[in-house]
Amino acid sequence: MQRLEHRACFGGWQDVYRFESAALRGATNVAVYLPPQAASRKLPVLYWLSGLTCSEQNFITKAGAQRYAAEHGLILVAPDTSPRGEGVADADGYDLGVGAGFYVDATQAPWAAHYRMYEYVTRELPALIEAEFPASGARAVSGHSMGGHGALVAALKNPGRYRSVSAFAPVVAPTRVPWGEKAFSAYLGDDREAWKAWDACELVKTARERLPLLVDQGEADEFLDTQLRPELLREACAEAEHPLRLRLRPGYDHSYYFIASFIGEHIAHHAAALRD
Amino acid sequence: MQRLEHRACFGGWQDVYRFESAALRGATNVAVYLPPQAASRKLPVLYWLSGLTCSEQNFITKAGAQRYAAEHGLILVAPDTSPRGEGVADADGYDLGVGAGFYVDATQAPWAAHYRMYEYVTRELPALIEAEFPASGARAVSGHSMGGHGALVAALKNPGRYRSVSAFAPVVAPTRVPWGEKAFSAYLGDDREAWKAWDACELVKTARERLPLLVDQGEADEFLDTQLRPELLREACAEAEHPLRLRLRPGYDHSYYFIASFIGEHIAHHAAALRD
Repeated sequence: MQRLEHRACFGGWQDVYRFESAALRGATNVAVYLPPQAASRKLPVLYWLSGLTCSEQNFITKAGAQRYAAEHGLILVAPDTSPRGEGVADADGYDLGVGAGFYVDATQAPWAAHYRMYEYVTRELPALIEAEFPASGARAVSGHSMGGHGALVAALKNPGRYRSVSAFAPVVAPTRVPWGEKAFSAYLGDDREAWKAWDACELVKTARERLPLLVDQGEADEFLDTQLRPELLREACAEAEHPLRLRLRPGYDHSYYFIASFIGEHIAHHAAALRD
Repeated sequence: MQRLEHRACFGGWQDVYRFESAALRGATNVAVYLPPQAASRKLPVLYWLSGLTCSEQNFITKAGAQRYAAEHGLILVAPDTSPRGEGVADADGYDLGVGAGFYVDATQAPWAAHYRMYEYVTRELPALIEAEFPASGARAVSGHSMGGHGALVAALKNPGRYRSVSAFAPVVAPTRVPWGEKAFSAYLGDDREAWKAWDACELVKTARERLPLLVDQGEADEFLDTQLRPELLREACAEAEHPLRLRLRPGYDHSYYFIASFIGEHIAHHAAALRD
């Protein structure tokens, strides 16, 4: 792993590394925040999955999460949102291709060659982090928008793998909204049945673990009614009797100002679960 | 004033406005954070002056200051760092022209036409803020790097105008370092005596008010020995018996990770002074 950035932050270190990912078949950047406690012991890790157009930078520069991670003694890991670089397929528009991996493993050409973000974030990356950093093996996952979808799907598909999960303004039903339909058509092909394995509202129906879902959603979010539709998750969880804490936040939009305002509560939630 | 952005943040509103500045002779953007308390009463204002290359956006997206402003009930005001737009003189390089106003009033062509950042941030902007927002008239000023210079100079040149002043990694002696020499040569001309009116280390010699200077400086700052030289401020304050609290922070660099780590302490410092 090549260290690209190393910056003191709230008594710990905000680093960025670059390494060759087997899953993505190419070099990728990942941001790692090591709180002060990491100097003396192994710590739990919160994986953060970012939204459309983001890289590993957005969360670490805009969310203000390091303060809370330093308070609670959590490592923060923020990967990129897609493969990037020469030979990686891309498309016009911000919602497909580079910056828009949707945390699935693509099955269709030309995407299948590199777009294996699910394999990367749920398998390769945790193994790497636990080998290279003072990580205890206790994991939590959170994310925003496309990354909120990624966090919910990662947790629901992997019972026992995460101690807790949360999401900010997640795409809860990608099989039924334009962002998801566009991405899944490209990455997964025309068979809509195959899409269901990547849809949180579908996955709660058969989840083997009752891991509570913590979701914050701004009521002034510009994508609320078209792409996010939190009511679909509420209905799916009610029907499946899956525990959900969905908090609608009046006035808040889809931006990092919304995330910054509530990331402290999410990190406290994860820290409590990771302490147990 | 035209409102360009309006985003809920820590129970208040992070807004960005655009208006025609008389001092700058053109339209300029200014960021205003109104904490929740602003809905019911007048509040003190902390003016934040950003560093080279910044606009009104950097501080509001990266410093995480809104949380503390909401805790303490302070309005935050972050102007741009220079005039911008058609007809505004510029130069090659990041350290002169657009994004590099240095908070002086230029006397030399072609700069003098628009580069009147001192007049703007110390006179026009506070008058506007106090007319248009629930601002009590109690003021504090802080800033980073070039903006740390701006904050120190604004306070030292205006006894009674600010209740408190602080700076992150300020350019304390612009008349003696390359950034300052380049900017002052252009904006103020060749007479180095005239530069002294814009140099914190010179201004402490004759300051009529003993306003304590709070300065944080990272010891791993890449500009420490070439552009910042905090020892010059320490010497000048010792000689003039001007109160200075200079804190050297091991490991910290010049980035917003440094600012984010200590902005809470600075805002608490200003809030205490503004409460009195």
